[in-house]
Amino acid sequence: MAYFENVNKIKFEGAKSTNPFAFKFYNPEEVINGKTMEEYLRYGVAYWHTFTADLSDPFGAGTAIRNWDKFSEMDQAKARVEGAFEFFEKLGVPYFCFHDVDIAPEGNSLAESNKNQDIIVSMIKDYMKDSKVKLLWNTANNFTNPRFVHGAASSNNADVFAYSAAKVKKQLEIGKELGGENYVFWGGREGYESLLNTDLKLEQDNLARFFHMAKDYAKEIGFGAQFLIEPKPKEPTTHQYDFDVATGIGFLRTYGLEDTFKFNIEANHATLAGHTFEHELRTARINGMLGSVDANQGDPLLGWDTDEFPTDLWSTTLAMYEIIKNGGLGTGGLNFDAKVRRGSFEQDDLFLSHIAGMDAFAVGYKVANKLIEDKALDSFIEERYSSYTSGIGKDIVDGNTNFKKLEDHALGLNEITNKSGRVESIKATINQYLLTAFADNK
Amino acid sequence: MAYFENVNKIKFEGAKSTNPFAFKFYNPEEVINGKTMEEYLRYGVAYWHTFTADLSDPFGAGTAIRNWDKFSEMDQAKARVEGAFEFFEKLGVPYFCFHDVDIAPEGNSLAESNKNQDIIVSMIKDYMKDSKVKLLWNTANNFTNPRFVHGAASSNNADVFAYSAAKVKKQLEIGKELGGENYVFWGGREGYESLLNTDLKLEQDNLARFFHMAKDYAKEIGFGAQFLIEPKPKEPTTHQYDFDVATGIGFLRTYGLEDTFKFNIEANHATLAGHTFEHELRTARINGMLGSVDANQGDPLLGWDTDEFPTDLWSTTLAMYEIIKNGGLGTGGLNFDAKVRRGSFEQDDLFLSHIAGMDAFAVGYKVANKLIEDKALDSFIEERYSSYTSGIGKDIVDGNTNFKKLEDHALGLNEITNKSGRVESIKATINQYLLTAFADNK
Amino acid sequence: MAYFENVNKIKFEGAKSTNPFAFKFYNPEEVINGKTMEEYLRYGVAYWHTFTADLSDPFGAGTAIRNWDKFSEMDQAKARVEGAFEFFEKLGVPYFCFHDVDIAPEGNSLAESNKNQDIIVSMIKDYMKDSKVKLLWNTANNFTNPRFVHGAASSNNADVFAYSAAKVKKQLEIGKELGGENYVFWGGREGYESLLNTDLKLEQDNLARFFHMAKDYAKEIGFGAQFLIEPKPKEPTTHQYDFDVATGIGFLRTYGLEDTFKFNIEANHATLAGHTFEHELRTARINGMLGSVDANQGDPLLGWDTDEFPTDLWSTTLAMYEIIKNGGLGTGGLNFDAKVRRGSFEQDDLFLSHIAGMDAFAVGYKVANKLIEDKALDSFIEERYSSYTSGIGKDIVDGNTNFKKLEDHALGLNEITNKSGRVESIKATINQYLLTAFADNK
Amino acid sequence: MAYFENVNKIKFEGAKSTNPFAFKFYNPEEVINGKTMEEYLRYGVAYWHTFTADLSDPFGAGTAIRNWDKFSEMDQAKARVEGAFEFFEKLGVPYFCFHDVDIAPEGNSLAESNKNQDIIVSMIKDYMKDSKVKLLWNTANNFTNPRFVHGAASSNNADVFAYSAAKVKKQLEIGKELGGENYVFWGGREGYESLLNTDLKLEQDNLARFFHMAKDYAKEIGFGAQFLIEPKPKEPTTHQYDFDVATGIGFLRTYGLEDTFKFNIEANHATLAGHTFEHELRTARINGMLGSVDANQGDPLLGWDTDEFPTDLWSTTLAMYEIIKNGGLGTGGLNFDAKVRRGSFEQDDLFLSHIAGMDAFAVGYKVANKLIEDKALDSFIEERYSSYTSGIGKDIVDGNTNFKKLEDHALGLNEITNKSGRVESIKATINQYLLTAFADNK
Repeated sequence: MAYFENVNKIKFEGAKSTNPFAFKFYNPEEVINGKTMEEYLRYGVAYWHTFTADLSDPFGAGTAIRNWDKFSEMDQAKARVEGAFEFFEKLGVPYFCFHDVDIAPEGNSLAESNKNQDIIVSMIKDYMKDSKVKLLWNTANNFTNPRFVHGAASSNNADVFAYSAAKVKKQLEIGKELGGENYVFWGGREGYESLLNTDLKLEQDNLARFFHMAKDYAKEIGFGAQFLIEPKPKEPTTHQYDFDVATGIGFLRTYGLEDTFKFNIEANHATLAGHTFEHELRTARINGMLGSVDANQGDPLLGWDTDEFPTDLWSTTLAMYEIIKNGGLGTGGLNFDAKVRRGSFEQDDLFLSHIAGMDAFAVGYKVANKLIEDKALDSFIEERYSSYTSGIGKDIVDGNTNFKKLEDHALGLNEITNKSGRVESIKATINQYLLTAFADNK
Repeated sequence: MAYFENVNKIKFEGAKSTNPFAFKFYNPEEVINGKTMEEYLRYGVAYWHTFTADLSDPFGAGTAIRNWDKFSEMDQAKARVEGAFEFFEKLGVPYFCFHDVDIAPEGNSLAESNKNQDIIVSMIKDYMKDSKVKLLWNTANNFTNPRFVHGAASSNNADVFAYSAAKVKKQLEIGKELGGENYVFWGGREGYESLLNTDLKLEQDNLARFFHMAKDYAKEIGFGAQFLIEPKPKEPTTHQYDFDVATGIGFLRTYGLEDTFKFNIEANHATLAGHTFEHELRTARINGMLGSVDANQGDPLLGWDTDEFPTDLWSTTLAMYEIIKNGGLGTGGLNFDAKVRRGSFEQDDLFLSHIAGMDAFAVGYKVANKLIEDKALDSFIEERYSSYTSGIGKDIVDGNTNFKKLEDHALGLNEITNKSGRVESIKATINQYLLTAFADNK
Repeated sequence: MAYFENVNKIKFEGAKSTNPFAFKFYNPEEVINGKTMEEYLRYGVAYWHTFTADLSDPFGAGTAIRNWDKFSEMDQAKARVEGAFEFFEKLGVPYFCFHDVDIAPEGNSLAESNKNQDIIVSMIKDYMKDSKVKLLWNTANNFTNPRFVHGAASSNNADVFAYSAAKVKKQLEIGKELGGENYVFWGGREGYESLLNTDLKLEQDNLARFFHMAKDYAKEIGFGAQFLIEPKPKEPTTHQYDFDVATGIGFLRTYGLEDTFKFNIEANHATLAGHTFEHELRTARINGMLGSVDANQGDPLLGWDTDEFPTDLWSTTLAMYEIIKNGGLGTGGLNFDAKVRRGSFEQDDLFLSHIAGMDAFAVGYKVANKLIEDKALDSFIEERYSSYTSGIGKDIVDGNTNFKKLEDHALGLNEITNKSGRVESIKATINQYLLTAFADNK
Repeated sequence: MAYFENVNKIKFEGAKSTNPFAFKFYNPEEVINGKTMEEYLRYGVAYWHTFTADLSDPFGAGTAIRNWDKFSEMDQAKARVEGAFEFFEKLGVPYFCFHDVDIAPEGNSLAESNKNQDIIVSMIKDYMKDSKVKLLWNTANNFTNPRFVHGAASSNNADVFAYSAAKVKKQLEIGKELGGENYVFWGGREGYESLLNTDLKLEQDNLARFFHMAKDYAKEIGFGAQFLIEPKPKEPTTHQYDFDVATGIGFLRTYGLEDTFKFNIEANHATLAGHTFEHELRTARINGMLGSVDANQGDPLLGWDTDEFPTDLWSTTLAMYEIIKNGGLGTGGLNFDAKVRRGSFEQDDLFLSHIAGMDAFAVGYKVANKLIEDKALDSFIEERYSSYTSGIGKDIVDGNTNFKKLEDHALGLNEITNKSGRVESIKATINQYLLTAFADNK
């Protein structure tokens, strides 16, 4: 059956189009730097937000109207797969992502849950044969079920640790089966509610043990996906262990996991941690650990994870700037970990929102490319740090100096002259690039 | 003497210009809706940030390099006036704003301070004769001097109340002398550090008494400027009395001052209070109290007043949307209550930053105008609320119903059908307007 | 049947008791200022958190283990009533509060919902005959059901407005039936998700019309309960209309409702709005609008409504300070709008948490009483503001001065002398009171 | 001369004392666990806040009344030393801390600055001979002077890097000279204002190079003080590199510095980073990196560094809990990096505030000791994690399992049973300890 009757294939119609079901800025066939936008912007659809979520919030029941909700249990799961592939096809998106419980309901036992997984995975695999859509990443949802109330790999209950391991084991196998390019660990309950009843060291040690066993098992079965940690500072727990990228780097290095993992960076998680999206991307990038992106945005005035579709062009531009500077995302992609607002409950909103997000990142991509091509920021930065390319600066960078020599240098200085950092002017330049990038689309 | 040797008159050169000392989007002569941009966008320069501030911060000494700093005391004050008018002229800005202590140093007594004011005001008046620049508003700085440590009009010390009154009295006279179009009250110390030692009611009563006396005195001397309260939620005090627009409305109505005051709304103060800039503007607008604007922006990840020059085009667009819907700002204007970053300490940065801000609001103005002209938002909203134009909805609005009738209506309803709010789609539309507005400027 | 087998009647055993199911500080029979603690501390149990909630969160399913969950629908509702009265009895709490949907499930129509209400209300009424527990307040839940997705009284859909009115009408009748002492309006969906699709003025006007009709209907049926608005700044909507007490005052005065409503102030809502709990209490108090209290606490590091049981003794002390200064809460009370953490999912936690909260407010009450009795804060404040009791200060307060006279006074001043506000010392004093208040309980 | 005429030696007089200039809870001679409070609670006075600061804020001039301000320049510096030692003596505090510019003014050249340092250091050394006060730590202020506008060790200007090195070199020498037990690095300008003009990698590499050179130089001169990094997330820069403890661990491990540094943890910096004070202490502790403490508190509702004197007893209790669990602070101490409020500008406030803070930490110490002695928290935690001491849990901890074995275990489980985390009850227990700890002092 057709789940999205109102929508045909979404096409690029350019900025002057008034068709709301058309791309205005994302032109999948447009070639930039030798790649089509479609190749470079490896967009992914998040199964949970788009096909499973009901748009409930802490004060309200679900509002989503979805055609597959006329079914239930495994029938509903199958209908969702049908709907999903119709959606992927019409939207023209190259990737999708899921948690185990998104695609199939949990059974009354682990064995039954696994069986449900097998049925749906087999169906997905069939659909993938006839589709160009690929699996960006899958993962195990080790946070929703009450058994994870006190954590999964960091639970105080060893049975829960074992159960969590079994679920990840299954998803590693499924990832291999479906050709998943990455595997994500978001520790939804790996954190604490209160330090007062928590053995912080044991919990973090166990989390590291869990990651090592996951790594070993992936190797054992020959699953070569890139492992990704997804930082988040808080929510649902009071304090999540993977607070931000910098925390993750410390954790991975402490436990000898730094060569196994990269980061899956989410915009809204960045801002909840007190950072800009681009800060998290940059921090991962200069540490060689930028793996993939959860493309969404938060509301800077709200203190929870709003997971909005990204429409902030300033942010998408600076994000794409980091990604291009990173040489792209490798096996990673831009997964829309974003949900339509509870008030946008119609099925059409799923398309309208993805179009908004895909257009916003396409704009960011085009503007960032132009900024880099013109060295609009780089020229200034090179000049700004030029004192480290000769003399005492070069000695510092080359490790050819020490405090005594530096003191000698300093004692010989008359006045130190700094130059303006010109931040306001640089911002104006970026605005100028943004406002002129699509002149031809008018 | 010339204080800004490097800069000639700033002109509109269009978006393709690479001259950093040129307007790219603000074209003072461009006519929109029958008015030139210059007439409509009543930009003002803030004397304190631009001519008086040294760019110190809580952890650092001032960095600003200013040509008038070779002088001191009254000579410096005079040099600042010269520099200011050179700056106004070169920037082509129609308004300026000041506090008493910005333009002239305090003396050893109130009488001496007043004398210093008179000297500089006379000089300013002379300069204004040969300039098209006008006074948007002036005000008394009743927060910097240690005497205001516990408040000004809300001080626990009646002598301080009296001193504050004397300072405002003087500025009302000066406002009249210089043709000021508004008079602003920002209660920098009108708030509390701690409730534990504070008589909250007496302090707020006294603040109201102060406002009534100010109103009476302005009337007495025939000074017809619009009075403006400037909301801010915190900083420097723990809790400022003029927290936000809604708080201000409550205060003004409680003390019978609602017909005397409008609001001077600052973007950064809005976000510190947990609101968007446009929320504060809208709240004032629908209450008929939108008076003037302090055009700046904050950093949503920082918890203090950063007073940055505005470059967020989304924000300037939504701000101008409210202003246009308000029928303009009347006697108000867009005062750049914004300071260059401490690292942007060269004099050129003063121009570059104002250009960035003037361009950003010009963009917002043009985009907002187009949105309104096309009813890009209004059409949807009209349809969305159409149920209030007939039937039970009209009865509600007209006051022709009650709970019994409404219950009857509700009991007769089968299912209630709501429609999507389409927020994501609306945001995409605004982005589309933004990205195509300046196609011709390329 | 017995729902709480493990727990007998909770008694006061004093601070040295190690029985976790005993009060350590709340002694219902202790007489302070002529009233027993039980009379003064009008504690209430929130039906929704204690009997209806399942402890789900945005990332997790419900964890609560409740004996009445072996039933469903109306049978479950009846079992909850049984459990609730057993709980009230064992805890020894004088009040309870509920929303319509807490006590009985919604039916397939408004008529059926009302019928369900009638059945349970009748049962509650019977139980109340044999119990000393009374109804502090009831209210209509106009936020959970999808029909309220765009608001209730502020919905864009007039049918929803009508439906909301019908639900409030029913609850006003039930409030009367059960002898409710107050009626609360928490506008869970009265706010906006985005200004972009919102007619702010119409929504606020309609909200006011709704309140007027509620007032008229209560009068018509002779229901004399105190009406209460409960401020909250955000969540679930991006911006709630009843942001905080100050906003509420402005709203009520704008629409002529200031004599009809007081405020129901929640600690966690205060902090989400950027205020301390005591600030909101004080603001309501000095405006004569302190009605009732939702006794909970938030986590200052989390940006959402955590609704924790109150255990912060500093906060309970300053809250009780305001309440005592207010002459008590009148018909209001201290409703524990607090939920056990998701990890505290056993039934025993319901008792343990209420004990924690009741003890915390009992401590606050005792300490605040002593502070007031000793004038520990008042003496300092009286002295601090003494300049307003004579001379120019008295003239200010009495309205016998103006800007000219005040200027004359200021010109005659030599140096203005302020005195230290002594905040640190005052805080130390409060700590001293806190630490010595229960010496006898050891 | 005597700078503090009103104050004699501060003594312990117990909680019932009404003398504001007496300790109520801090009894230096009281022996707990074999040490006097004075030995264990290694309190330090911060030279900058207590003797150098003028209490200015971003909107106000300094208000502090200090007897040594009748002098200027080097005379003032000398008077401050006299005043400081009188203060140390009267307060009975065992440690102090300073930055270079706190103790002596900068000269017109580095050489002159160093000379000024030598003069005052010599004077301090003489005073120390006759005093029991010792140097907890010193440091170089590489943030106030305009030359550090773009950073110190992370400046884009190599001359500034050299100058910064020279200043740290001097302070390492002075630390050795005065027997400093630690050396602190707070990177006041080591961060960025904007990523747009920043070479993040070069700046962090240079920061690491700087630390290595500092380590080498300390070794060279035989200065054995513990090196400490002081995390802070933001302010003055938009993003400080030493964001929090977790970030610091990542940084130190990335650059091979993890054996050289521990952390100096400040309460207010913790909360600005979104953590509790105890979280930062615990994180450092379980990583073996808890070095010293800046004992203050922030205002959770304000977004900047308020540096208040600590009076929150809950916080001091949980802080001391971590410190005792750490086996004390080793060479570290409890430095009051706290400033009197701007309104507490009298000299007496310096004593009153330190008394408030010393009493608060003494309370925390006593309560935490009792909690640990009684295993009030530990018993519950041991039981809670007991599943890891046998069976599959022990296998996990011992590294004797893998995903396959864990899956086998999980498949064999029937239902997983978790137990309540009892957070509310634990909080009530801590309150009970707090309220009864000082019963005898009444």
